[in-house]
This record gives sequence, structure tokens and C-alpha cells, in this order.
Amino acid sequence: MTHSSRRARLSAEMHAAELDAMLVTDLVNVRYLSGFTGSAGALLVYADGRPAVLATDGRYRTQAARQAPDLQIAIERAGACHLVTEAAAAGAHRVGFEAHVVTVDGFDALSAALETGRANGRAELVRASGTVEALREVKDAGEVALLRLACEAADAALSDLVARGGLRPGRTEREVGRQLEALMLDHGADAASFETIVAAGPNSAIPHHRPTDAVLADGDFVKIDFGALVAGYHSDMTRTFVLGPPADWQREIYQVVAAAQRAGRHALQPGAGLCEVDAAARTVIAEAGYGDTFGHGLGHGVGLRIHEAPGINAAADGTLLAGAVVTVEPGVYLADRGGVRIEDTLVVADTPGQAPELLTRFPKELTILD
Amino acid sequence: MTHSSRRARLSAEMHAAELDAMLVTDLVNVRYLSGFTGSAGALLVYADGRPAVLATDGRYRTQAARQAPDLQIAIERAGACHLVTEAAAAGAHRVGFEAHVVTVDGFDALSAALETGRANGRAELVRASGTVEALREVKDAGEVALLRLACEAADAALSDLVARGGLRPGRTEREVGRQLEALMLDHGADAASFETIVAAGPNSAIPHHRPTDAVLADGDFVKIDFGALVAGYHSDMTRTFVLGPPADWQREIYQVVAAAQRAGRHALQPGAGLCEVDAAARTVIAEAGYGDTFGHGLGHGVGLRIHEAPGINAAADGTLLAGAVVTVEPGVYLADRGGVRIEDTLVVADTPGQAPELLTRFPKELTILD
Repeated sequence: MTHSSRRARLSAEMHAAELDAMLVTDLVNVRYLSGFTGSAGALLVYADGRPAVLATDGRYRTQAARQAPDLQIAIERAGACHLVTEAAAAGAHRVGFEAHVVTVDGFDALSAALETGRANGRAELVRASGTVEALREVKDAGEVALLRLACEAADAALSDLVARGGLRPGRTEREVGRQLEALMLDHGADAASFETIVAAGPNSAIPHHRPTDAVLADGDFVKIDFGALVAGYHSDMTRTFVLGPPADWQREIYQVVAAAQRAGRHALQPGAGLCEVDAAARTVIAEAGYGDTFGHGLGHGVGLRIHEAPGINAAADGTLLAGAVVTVEPGVYLADRGGVRIEDTLVVADTPGQAPELLTRFPKELTILD
Repeated sequence: MTHSSRRARLSAEMHAAELDAMLVTDLVNVRYLSGFTGSAGALLVYADGRPAVLATDGRYRTQAARQAPDLQIAIERAGACHLVTEAAAAGAHRVGFEAHVVTVDGFDALSAALETGRANGRAELVRASGTVEALREVKDAGEVALLRLACEAADAALSDLVARGGLRPGRTEREVGRQLEALMLDHGADAASFETIVAAGPNSAIPHHRPTDAVLADGDFVKIDFGALVAGYHSDMTRTFVLGPPADWQREIYQVVAAAQRAGRHALQPGAGLCEVDAAARTVIAEAGYGDTFGHGLGHGVGLRIHEAPGINAAADGTLLAGAVVTVEPGVYLADRGGVRIEDTLVVADTPGQAPELLTRFPKELTILD
């Protein structure tokens, strides 16, 4: 069972950190380890393989039992405090907690719970920030299957949008964004995975433009950055179109970005340095003379969050892991004129030399919409 | 200017708590006090009226200057650490922070920043949880105006939905929810203020049902709980319809909930105990014999968040403040049969005896859709 094997991986990390138990309070991490999707809950995982305990409130009694049938369920309003007390009473000495998630007030409450009652001061809270996030970096087969569905929904929606003439002069950025989001729902998405970016003409030079009532016009670049959410998993894709015959400068920067994106995808090898992957694409843009216009990182992990580990940028330490799912999204942005970004979501292969699996399959050739 | 008067109210609270400065890191609180809506930022407010400082990153340089023209802007990646260092260097001794928001890791970083460099250990971090949230409980005129717009957008969308025959047997809950959300956008909403609840037939007995492919059928209750988001402010309204002539049990529980909701609205007086307001509605339901079926609180504040202070429930301490904006939303839920909830958003009047202002004006009579 997937969730139990994820918890087993966490237990292995806990052994390494000499933790007897770990309290997980980040709701995305709770979902990852248990399958529970409610809006309130906390999870206690033991290092020695004793059954994990999920605490939530009365609203979620039925849902928790259904989604996490292999867990003990505790219906408690102050779930996290209950769980650390349980852990101490069960003999745990070192209890890990997510110090990047638990607030100062929350920590005070956990500490107070450990001093009183059945816990009686026998356990110590130990910082364990980012432990579950590190596990989440490598996707298992079930996760890749959901990411594939999310990317397919996005691909199908964009194909439909183009086929229906949705990208044409006279429409507003907002209209295009709303139609694309509706089409994703039609193709099986639960929701958009973030607010769709539709940026026309000069707005395409703004990397994270929010759609406005600006009207698409002949000769515009139209940059669309969007994704679908399926069963908690996010897709992420950017395509840039041109309305009518492109000017020379448009053709030029499109080709530069496309070449950089290709180089980035080719560098996406297990074991590659994250900053080397970034450099592979960035060098292409710099050598074409546009280095100053590419001001963001090359990519990021995607999964249960739209942005997660690893970050692929010039300052990143570490290497790309086999089975990570990441974006590759270089861009060139010419202020007040227009910009191009091309972004895919890909699965890093298991062995060096093998190409990554492309999840976002909508074509990347310069598409001229007349 | 609105934001500066809000900061002046905060400074008064800081004097009472003997704070020289306060670091605000909750983004909704930052927005409330500064007008800045970016996704990264922190604010430093001084007790003595020196200009507040907003720290954010390079992406928001232009936006911050435009949205918060009366503030100093600091472009810093580690904005909160920069601000407490600034405060210490400027002579602040006691610096408040939001201990219900700052994580344990975040607190460690702030503490380290205060020990080094220009700060040099001269300032102390002091817990100040919920201080800004308490200010936000009473809405000013600008806030009420935006809440009014949000409620109007929701009213207009629901009227349109009904007028267009959107609530009819054969449609799915999901279709109805999507149409209602699209209509809110047509009527000026920036987004839905939360995921629209459409619950038909037996699903209406689940207080917070998520829309499914369940099909609306003759004789069903259809419970719709939804809201519009306008400039950051949330509306919240529930109406329950019946498809075709109601059965006796449907008519009965509708009248009970309507009477309870009326009693709750009448009890909405400045100075009233929050638990007394809850009791005013709850008693009506209990006396009709349905007390066990109303398992949630009567209402909550709404504003920059969909749920904020005050909570109106049986366990609530404190009293209702003049100018608070709250929901009144009793319900009766009969498992496997159906349920009714009726919810309004209202502004508590300035003086006792005066009726609250009703912001959600869609009719509450039992509407039979043939």
C-alpha cells in the first residue's frame, strides 16, 4: 500500500535522526503519508513500525476512516497536543516536529501538553524541518500517474481552446483565462492548479502577469501559463503564441527560448547538479545576448504543491534525483515589447543517458494564429 | 487615509502592551495595515508614529510603491529579519511579533538576526498574537462598502441562476456550482470566496458537502452555500430551495430554520453576548425538537478571510462589537433525507435597538422551483 510504504520511508529517516516518533502537522504532508484530505488533522508516525495515528475533528470522522483505513483515528480538537501526549505515554523520548510549519504559539501548546498529564515530561520535541518534503521530491508510480492525468487535462484544454478559435484579436486576457479554466474542468480537472496567466502584447514581458481586460491584438505575443489539478496533483505548462505573422524580433526570441528550453530538457539527467541544469539553458540565452532578460530560475518541482523541491536555479545546491518531477521554463522578456516563456513538466529518468518523460505534450513549435 | 488610521489604532494597542515596534508577517494583516497585496512581504509598525516600513522582494518593487505610497519600502529577500534588525538599530527595545503566525524556524531566524550586526542584541521579541485580528473584527466604512459589493455580486448571480432555470431536475451539483461561480464573475466578483457548496437531496443533510455528479431530482432540497470575493473581501450566503411541491417534513424543517435564523438576526445587537446570540437561534430549533441535528456554531465574522473573529457559538466568550460583520446560519440536517441551512451576512449596528444591516438580500421565503 502506497501510504504505508511512504511512512516506512519516513521511519527510516527517523532512525537516522534518532527520533522515536514524528508529529506531522503540514496538511499536504499529512495527505502524502496517510491519504487523508480534510482541512484539519495531524499525524503521528512511529519509528518502530507501530500503527500511525491520525487526529482530526468530528466533521471528518467518516472521511478519515474511509481515506485512511489502515490508521488509528483519534477524534480530538487539539489533535497535535493529543498526539504528542500519546507518543510520550507510549514511551517515545525524542519526538520530531515540523519546525518550519509549527508556529511559536503551537510549539508552546505542544510543550505544555508534554509537561502535564500522561506525558509527564518524559518526551522531548526535536526540530525535523523538511523531512517529509525531502521524501516527496521523488515521485512514486501512483503520483506520476496522477501528474500525467493533470498534464493531459491541461494539454486537452489548450488544444480545445486553440481549435475553437479562443485565441484571437478582440478577446480579453480575462476571457481567454476563464475559457481555458472551464475547458480544464471539462477535461477532468478538479480545478485550475493556480490562477491562469494570460498575457498579451507588452504584458507578455511581465513574467507573472495577472489577466486583465487588455484586448488581444494582431501581432501580439500571447503567453499562457496554467495547469490542472487532479486528485491533489498540479500540472504546470507555458506556451507562447503569436497572433498573425511574427516580426523578426519575435521569431528571434522565440527561437532562443526554444533552444534554451531544449538544452534544459537535455540536461535533465539523474545526478546532474541543479545549478548545472539551470546553466545549460541560461547559457543559450546569454550567448544570444539576452542574458539580462531572464531573471528567474529555470524550474521547480511539482506535485502536491505547485512549487516544491527541488528548485532549479543558479544558487541551488544538490543534484537532480531519479524520479523527481520538475518544470523547465526559460524565458526572454523585453520590457514594453513582449516576452516568451516555454515550460514543460517532466519526470527525471531512472538512469543517466535516458531522456526524461515529457508530461506536457502540447507542441512547442512557434504557432502562428491567423 | 484608511491604512494609516488602521496603523494608528495598532500603535494605540502597542502602547498598551508596552511595545516599541511590531513586526506583522501574516499577509492578510499586512494587507489590512498597508494595502499591499503581494504574496511575500512583512511590515514594521512603530508605536511612536514613525513611518512604517514594508519589506518585500524585487518582484513587487513597483506594486509596493503603488499600493503603499505612504510607506518606506525595503527590497529584501529575508524581509522579516531585515525589519527587526532595523527596529533594533532604530532604538526599539520591545518588538512585538505574531506568535500565532511565525514558525519555530522563523523565530530562530529572527532571534539570530537580533543577535548580530547592527541589532547587536539590543531588542527583545515579544509575543503579540491576534492583535491585528482583533482590530479587524470591527469593519471601517471602506471595508463595509467592499463587503456590500461582494454580497451584491452573489445576490445577482443567484438571481440569474434561478431566472435562467439553472436549478432543475437532471442537472448535476457540479454543473450548478460551475454556473453559479461563472455568474459571480460576470457580476464583478474577482473569484468565488470559497468552493461553492451545492448539495441536492440526501446530500443536503451534509453540512459541508462538496459538489459531485449527483443529479438534481424532483422533490429534492437543493442547498447552496457560496460567496463572492471582491478586492479581498468575502461574502457568504446560503439558500435552500425545493424542486417541486415540498413534502410536509420539508416545509416543517424549512420553517423551523427560517424562524431560528430570524431570531438569530434579531439577537444581533451590539453588546450582546456571543453565546446568547447563538442561543437565541438554537433555542428555536431545540424547542421544535431538532436540537440534535444542528451541530455547528451559528455564525462567524467575515472580511479579508472567509472565517474570522468573532465566532458565534455556544462556547464563545465575549460580546458582539458595533460594526462587526458576521454570518447567521442555523441549519437542520436529517441524515439520509435532507437538510436546510439559511445564511445571511450582516453588519452589526452602532447602537442597541437598531437592526443590523442585511448585506445578502436574496429572498429567504421557501422558494419552490417547478
